[in-house]
Amino acid sequence: MQRSQDKFGFMLQGQSGAARLGSISTPRGAIRTPAFMPVGTVATVKALYPEQVATSGADILLGNTYHLMLRPGAERVHRLGGLHSFMRWDKPILTDSGGFQVMSLSKIRKITEEGVAFQSHLDGSRHMLSPERSIEIQCLLGADIQMQFDECIELPAERSEIERAMELSLRWAERSRLAFEHHVEDGLATRGQALFGIVQGGTDAVLRRRSAEALVAMDFPGYAVGGLAVGEGHEAMLATLDGVLPFLPAGKPRYLMGVGTPEDLIEAVRRGVDMFDCVMPTRNGRHGLAFTWSGRVNLRNAKHAEDLSPLDPQSTCPGARDYSRAYLHHLVRSGELLGSMILSWVNTCFYQELMAAMRGAIADGRFDAWADEVKPHLAAKA
Amino acid sequence: MQRSQDKFGFMLQGQSGAARLGSISTPRGAIRTPAFMPVGTVATVKALYPEQVATSGADILLGNTYHLMLRPGAERVHRLGGLHSFMRWDKPILTDSGGFQVMSLSKIRKITEEGVAFQSHLDGSRHMLSPERSIEIQCLLGADIQMQFDECIELPAERSEIERAMELSLRWAERSRLAFEHHVEDGLATRGQALFGIVQGGTDAVLRRRSAEALVAMDFPGYAVGGLAVGEGHEAMLATLDGVLPFLPAGKPRYLMGVGTPEDLIEAVRRGVDMFDCVMPTRNGRHGLAFTWSGRVNLRNAKHAEDLSPLDPQSTCPGARDYSRAYLHHLVRSGELLGSMILSWVNTCFYQELMAAMRGAIADGRFDAWADEVKPHLAAKA
Repeated sequence: MQRSQDKFGFMLQGQSGAARLGSISTPRGAIRTPAFMPVGTVATVKALYPEQVATSGADILLGNTYHLMLRPGAERVHRLGGLHSFMRWDKPILTDSGGFQVMSLSKIRKITEEGVAFQSHLDGSRHMLSPERSIEIQCLLGADIQMQFDECIELPAERSEIERAMELSLRWAERSRLAFEHHVEDGLATRGQALFGIVQGGTDAVLRRRSAEALVAMDFPGYAVGGLAVGEGHEAMLATLDGVLPFLPAGKPRYLMGVGTPEDLIEAVRRGVDMFDCVMPTRNGRHGLAFTWSGRVNLRNAKHAEDLSPLDPQSTCPGARDYSRAYLHHLVRSGELLGSMILSWVNTCFYQELMAAMRGAIADGRFDAWADEVKPHLAAKA
Repeated sequence: MQRSQDKFGFMLQGQSGAARLGSISTPRGAIRTPAFMPVGTVATVKALYPEQVATSGADILLGNTYHLMLRPGAERVHRLGGLHSFMRWDKPILTDSGGFQVMSLSKIRKITEEGVAFQSHLDGSRHMLSPERSIEIQCLLGADIQMQFDECIELPAERSEIERAMELSLRWAERSRLAFEHHVEDGLATRGQALFGIVQGGTDAVLRRRSAEALVAMDFPGYAVGGLAVGEGHEAMLATLDGVLPFLPAGKPRYLMGVGTPEDLIEAVRRGVDMFDCVMPTRNGRHGLAFTWSGRVNLRNAKHAEDLSPLDPQSTCPGARDYSRAYLHHLVRSGELLGSMILSWVNTCFYQELMAAMRGAIADGRFDAWADEVKPHLAAKA
């Protein structure tokens, strides 16, 4: 008989308005929600040592199936002992399905009922992703949370095209689910791992509801909202969330994919989202932008050139406490790797501080008051 | 009256053949010799946190006057409290004079008796470096060991041209010395800092001897051999060293600038050199090459793709112990920053391990035997 900690689970621990405090349990440890997952696209959170990611407070990180299947390859990672030991990260990992990045990165795609045929953006080699292959790859990598294979289309698009892709994604959801169950049976996966469904449907409330209800009928252990943060804007994203979340079960985690700014996260948590991932902290860090409790700091700005103050003397991150803005300005202006390293670290820590503060505000039953108080500061240019 | 630890000094502690064990004393701490100085060109040892440089065992690092005068600027660094606090390095720093890099990097130079007029490689702005300005910059930065301003010419060159530049460098040596003394008197420098002379003269033994003898007559607290490692080759470099070192006083440190490979360092130490600097550990690290006791490891090589062994399980460097070659191969092939970070760290640690091993072999009186034993391993492709 399996012990309970060997099974994937979610427990809702508190609520403040619609904002939810919870915990996802996995054999590799608990994930405190709301949770932000740093993005480790090709088995590294860019410019951070794995120890820095762990001490930032992150309970889980994200890997990209599309990138990893091309290099180093899923079978190779499996032979090497799985993604966790490969990249020295023993806490949970979520992998996406590859669907989104096939669309955004690869050349020459052909979408059929079976799946997507595409050419690698690295070397032009030909590959096929189907629901079955995507799940097999995610199992080979050893992902604790896996995502159904879906079709992500570019917006804006015709409603008929959005509907076609959403319906196809539902059929792929069922095939993904069957593939995952198959691998639980053949031993490539366990009940400690989980597969999430992904709600699609663009910004159309009717399509989104239909997608959500069909996925819920398939009874996934968690649900993602996909196809957002692709240029539709903050308000349209929130309106779409408002139309979807009521149709997702309260007892399962909800993951908003690819989002976002600190303000995006706060508004999504306010509506009941539990999980996020985004390249923003690391990508912005590599471009000289720091997130702080006083707002965004563009270290390229000349006003920092002789500022001996640190980014944030109260930060949990040594990178924000120990270096002067003057030095960071110099590193960024000089294009030095240490600038990317420190700022990616600072931002990764800040995002975790933000999630911890949100969890605290929910636990205290004052999320709305907290959110209204901090949002103007976070949005400022500091 | 000044305390002795406030004064710059050098003590020879042992010898094995011509190889020397010693210690340079400065108010910022001792420098164990033979010493290797990691290069922190623009106030950062590329891709390393300052804590990693310190724990590598480095007692001193090098900063580049040419780069720092252009960005962030010597007066700015001085206003910010000096180079040490700016870059968070409290052990000694040596700065070069800018002479070499004016030649190799700047556009449109005009050399006169007064100095070198040049345009910045960054923005084309016009600048002047003279012995007086070079020393002023080095004092503003707060360098513990400063270098005389010299003219570095490209080799091969006519003997008359080499002689002209060497003679000019001697006149600049005297002006550098007077400028440094001036700043000790006006308080911009202290007796805890030191100015080294630089022997020039290409690969011509007669010119080198004349340069060395003239500098020794000026009584510098240390002497560098400059103008080597510019393509003349390992044997010509060693032959030149053989022609210079007998004319340098035993009681002063000897610094071979810009050198080199592990084998270069061993052969130079064997001949009596005490100090080195080189970009090789960090530059090669950024290009996927690791130095180990078993030889050079090119991590781009496909043979590492599924090798779970670390670079060196016995290393002092966690980067060499904790990551598999397979993972490093993947990072290097993917152009990931973490690959540059880990390998620059590994190489910086390895160079310090190498210096520590040389110091141990000298202390044991068996440098030649040690060198002959390890050199073939270091030169291997592993």
